[in-house]
Amino acid sequence: MTTTTPALSVPSAGAPFEAIELERRDLRDDDVRIDIKFAGICHSDIHTVRDEWGAAHYPIVTGHEIAGVVSEVGDAVTKFKVGDRVGVGCLVDSCGECEFCKDGQEMFCTKGAVGTYNAQNYDGEWAAGGYSQQIVVTERMVVRIPEGIELDEAAPLLCAGITTYSPLKRWGAGPGKKVAVVGVGGLGHMAVKLAAAMGAEVTTLSRSSAKADDAKALGSSRHIATSDADAMKGARASFDLIINTVSADLDMEQYVKLLRPNGALVNVGLPPSKLAVNPGSLIIGNKSLSGSNIGGIGETQEMLDFCAEHGIGATIETLDASDTTTIDAAYDKVVAGDVRYRYVIDTSTISPSA
Amino acid sequence: MTTTTPALSVPSAGAPFEAIELERRDLRDDDVRIDIKFAGICHSDIHTVRDEWGAAHYPIVTGHEIAGVVSEVGDAVTKFKVGDRVGVGCLVDSCGECEFCKDGQEMFCTKGAVGTYNAQNYDGEWAAGGYSQQIVVTERMVVRIPEGIELDEAAPLLCAGITTYSPLKRWGAGPGKKVAVVGVGGLGHMAVKLAAAMGAEVTTLSRSSAKADDAKALGSSRHIATSDADAMKGARASFDLIINTVSADLDMEQYVKLLRPNGALVNVGLPPSKLAVNPGSLIIGNKSLSGSNIGGIGETQEMLDFCAEHGIGATIETLDASDTTTIDAAYDKVVAGDVRYRYVIDTSTISPSA
Repeated sequence: MTTTTPALSVPSAGAPFEAIELERRDLRDDDVRIDIKFAGICHSDIHTVRDEWGAAHYPIVTGHEIAGVVSEVGDAVTKFKVGDRVGVGCLVDSCGECEFCKDGQEMFCTKGAVGTYNAQNYDGEWAAGGYSQQIVVTERMVVRIPEGIELDEAAPLLCAGITTYSPLKRWGAGPGKKVAVVGVGGLGHMAVKLAAAMGAEVTTLSRSSAKADDAKALGSSRHIATSDADAMKGARASFDLIINTVSADLDMEQYVKLLRPNGALVNVGLPPSKLAVNPGSLIIGNKSLSGSNIGGIGETQEMLDFCAEHGIGATIETLDASDTTTIDAAYDKVVAGDVRYRYVIDTSTISPSA
Repeated sequence: MTTTTPALSVPSAGAPFEAIELERRDLRDDDVRIDIKFAGICHSDIHTVRDEWGAAHYPIVTGHEIAGVVSEVGDAVTKFKVGDRVGVGCLVDSCGECEFCKDGQEMFCTKGAVGTYNAQNYDGEWAAGGYSQQIVVTERMVVRIPEGIELDEAAPLLCAGITTYSPLKRWGAGPGKKVAVVGVGGLGHMAVKLAAAMGAEVTTLSRSSAKADDAKALGSSRHIATSDADAMKGARASFDLIINTVSADLDMEQYVKLLRPNGALVNVGLPPSKLAVNPGSLIIGNKSLSGSNIGGIGETQEMLDFCAEHGIGATIETLDASDTTTIDAAYDKVVAGDVRYRYVIDTSTISPSA
């Protein structure tokens, strides 16, 4: 038994979006049905539908930055009731029993966490994401969106927010700490807002100064154009923590030099080439070249509560999907860095009959 | 005014050792004079006198694993008295006033810490190391060797001990943690002893199984020959912490794969080539590729106290330096990995008149 719901689907690699009627499963006891209001466009969506990461399974309905309202709950659901404002991020299931699930790191589930799209549920069904008007998810993977964050500005928090919040927390961003954010895009603009709200002194770095004013408005106290060799040299040994949100190849050596002793350069983007650094550059200064992968469900809730407390939402441009070519064009703009700073699809505009 | 003391000196790159009379400064108010009993041979000594790291300033008296007894103290010395058993490691001075000195991380002194050899003191004098019968050092950089550790087995703790203790502590080695040590040599054998004493479950890795029995005697519960592809595959996602003590180029990717989520691969050796790793290998699992550089004076004292409490000293072979070619030959053996596990010079045998 299933229900159908309007969704945006890509039928094959390189094909444009089309509006379809998507089947969603009937509720299991622990499921909630969510009326999706907004879905953010993450660069990962683009890599996936364009099969740039391999293993794409078409048709694909992308979207793992999901904000909406509970419309129905299964018999055993205890956390949510109809009308609750909720979100779903990059994961829709995990075993719930392994050491990592129990420790709130569902993304490292030893059984293998189930991604929100382009992934198979444990029963073999292919998961379909948030570019849709409805989704059915086990309540354990659903988080509450507090009052005080609009649903459209909340959607990108479910991936871009948690992906930057988690390393900022883990590596101690806070008062007295100097944090640099490399790249002022979907992830970067969230890293700036969050680090500033945590009380850290934030510096932004990007190729040019084009986003310097924007960066300051987001919470950065200084902007460095990485093309300015003197400025880069002057910034050496300045930062306790660098969050690199850029998915293009960068010279890690150049950024490790910007770290103070005991500092960490944490990558959250996936550039195509290996990261390379001189061993001495890590040893002299006890430095770390690290990576960080989203965050667990509990930490995602913590991040949303933190955002509500500090009045933080994503900075967004909202898209009308009634003409699906708008979404195709938006993908090209994301790739070109031409969005300030996150596209969000108003899912009510998805119209299969159009 | 100076005092002379027998020492082993290398007059130029590639030259053999010669026994000389070395000048040591008269005591300043805060100095202690130490009668050196034993000096360990560290691979760094060899890199330095062979000018493999550049910037060698001849003649050089190497040695930064120094154990001895206080023979004289300056008027303002409060920490030590004549007869105290003491050690000196890789540093003989630092500014004492910067944030890192105040935080017990003298190796990151913003003025620049002064190395024990091949480095200039703040007054411009060239520092000479521990292959000598005496050294004069400001008391702040001297540590106490507790009763219960023989001076010969204590000497290597001043570099090999602290270099492995510091990252083990920082990255949480202890009960319930699985620690791998790559390379069973001067540093590696100390890492095994220390990690086991901290309560961690220790695995050793080296190219072959030749040192497997030794490693178990040191405290390793399992040995993996890295040439055994099946064993390496079977060890994936096994370790919370890997201490890599090898100074040759290794494929970092192969070792990062052995880490559990949230794990760190900490390098303490200085291989010639860059360390390279796939960005996804760090991101999927929140992993870190890190470095670690000796440790501060306070932490060195803590390490010595820990070693005394747990009955730990280095496993050594003692050298008679009356024939200086013995030391030349020992250097070649260290490079060949043919020492179990640290050479220590009995400095009483240094004889300039021989």
